[in-house]
Amino acid sequence: MAQKLRSVDLTQVSEWTDGKLVRKDDYLAAEEPLEIRVGESPLSVTMRTPGHDLELAAGFLFTEGIVQLREQIIALENSSNDDAGKRGNVVRAALAAESMPDFDKMRRHFFAASSCGICGKASIDSVRSRLLSSPNPDFRIDPGLLVTLPEALRSAQDVFERTGGLHAAALFNARGELLVLREDIGRHNAVDKVIGWALLKDRVPLGECVLLVSGRGGFEIIQKAIVAGIPVVASVSAPSSLAVQLARELRQTLIGFLRGKRFVIYAGEERVAKA
Amino acid sequence: MAQKLRSVDLTQVSEWTDGKLVRKDDYLAAEEPLEIRVGESPLSVTMRTPGHDLELAAGFLFTEGIVQLREQIIALENSSNDDAGKRGNVVRAALAAESMPDFDKMRRHFFAASSCGICGKASIDSVRSRLLSSPNPDFRIDPGLLVTLPEALRSAQDVFERTGGLHAAALFNARGELLVLREDIGRHNAVDKVIGWALLKDRVPLGECVLLVSGRGGFEIIQKAIVAGIPVVASVSAPSSLAVQLARELRQTLIGFLRGKRFVIYAGEERVAKA
Repeated sequence: MAQKLRSVDLTQVSEWTDGKLVRKDDYLAAEEPLEIRVGESPLSVTMRTPGHDLELAAGFLFTEGIVQLREQIIALENSSNDDAGKRGNVVRAALAAESMPDFDKMRRHFFAASSCGICGKASIDSVRSRLLSSPNPDFRIDPGLLVTLPEALRSAQDVFERTGGLHAAALFNARGELLVLREDIGRHNAVDKVIGWALLKDRVPLGECVLLVSGRGGFEIIQKAIVAGIPVVASVSAPSSLAVQLARELRQTLIGFLRGKRFVIYAGEERVAKA
Repeated sequence: MAQKLRSVDLTQVSEWTDGKLVRKDDYLAAEEPLEIRVGESPLSVTMRTPGHDLELAAGFLFTEGIVQLREQIIALENSSNDDAGKRGNVVRAALAAESMPDFDKMRRHFFAASSCGICGKASIDSVRSRLLSSPNPDFRIDPGLLVTLPEALRSAQDVFERTGGLHAAALFNARGELLVLREDIGRHNAVDKVIGWALLKDRVPLGECVLLVSGRGGFEIIQKAIVAGIPVVASVSAPSSLAVQLARELRQTLIGFLRGKRFVIYAGEERVAKA
């Protein structure tokens, strides 16, 4: 039995290869529910890969519009409660009085199931209303540098190599330096962890950063990045129609299919330029 | 401008290739919010790819435990309402009296944001409590036939070829015949569409089927498949730890990394055998 990491589980499986069955050990990406509470009131349950849970909670509270400022989060703690099954899977937040959610109002917003972080707040106007400012119009990223970021991300992704089951999100500065990388079984959680990291370090808005995500760029990813003031979002795969529409309307740069020496610009082309 | 399909959008983009920038048309996977209402009460908002919305709603109602039987759905209709932005993005369900959700109780279950269809019902016990029966113990799938399914799925995925942005879910019978294929920007929606198709055709429980999904096999996929009585779930990528745990406890067969002439059996090995 290998050393137990929180983000991976080891298990015995059977591998079938062209008629031959072999038993072997295999690593799995860990997935467990995390409940975020405000005081004693449950706010959200998300399936996530354990690790960086406080960042995840901070990022979620911020990107979903519960708090607008770092200072509104008075305390965040991993909470053990009496329910053994939930040990370590609860984060309790103490918020400034003005940030205490109106739980009845929230019900409308969060009354949604298979929603991947978007819930009832589906409209672009709703995102716009939560913006402190538009993403930095003066930020520039060199295209020759942009194409080097996926390799930088991959080489930093040690967990990914092992399980093939985790999404990654990373922040880079305009010089291509990796600021933070987080992984999760849920793409939106990886983004919340990265943004939560920045919020807890008082680095939001992230007006001088590129957010790179593995996989697709859907609406919820763009929404979270815009709320955090990130001027450029890049993914290695395709964005959705609504992601493109949101990025265009709120003047964010959106890059897709960032692979090899090629990428596609879906919005905000002016930021892709030599500095 | 190409013909408008509901599941894809055409847009103009800029493609950067090794220093050269070219403008071109590109297809995007469509993503729009769908609100599911029970009577006049909103139950859920999910970001989905338009198309097969009634199946999606039926599958969601069933796999999330709102209804247990086809008969409990009295009517399902695509609803145009006064809000122009939502035209076609509302499905209204009329349910039998005994299936009317207790919205206060539901609040606890659905009070969750970035949850991809799992919400507060995170525990395996919760899934167990909603099962009508264990997945068919007598179903067998020939391993030599199993390895042919991904190619059958790919050749049926015409939208995928065009956008690279959609997840697929498909049901096959034990002879490897494709029964239904659905695509969506959300993997859980693709699964709900497939199961909703079966529910509306009175084919649930799906005790003689293999469910094949593109991408990863997470907890919520396995949960939905188990509720529908599907004995074998296969994916082309890795499952999560909780997906494996759930499949093992509830005696479902779970296959991962189904690629080429190889796959990995994570649970329920006994069903992988020549008939």
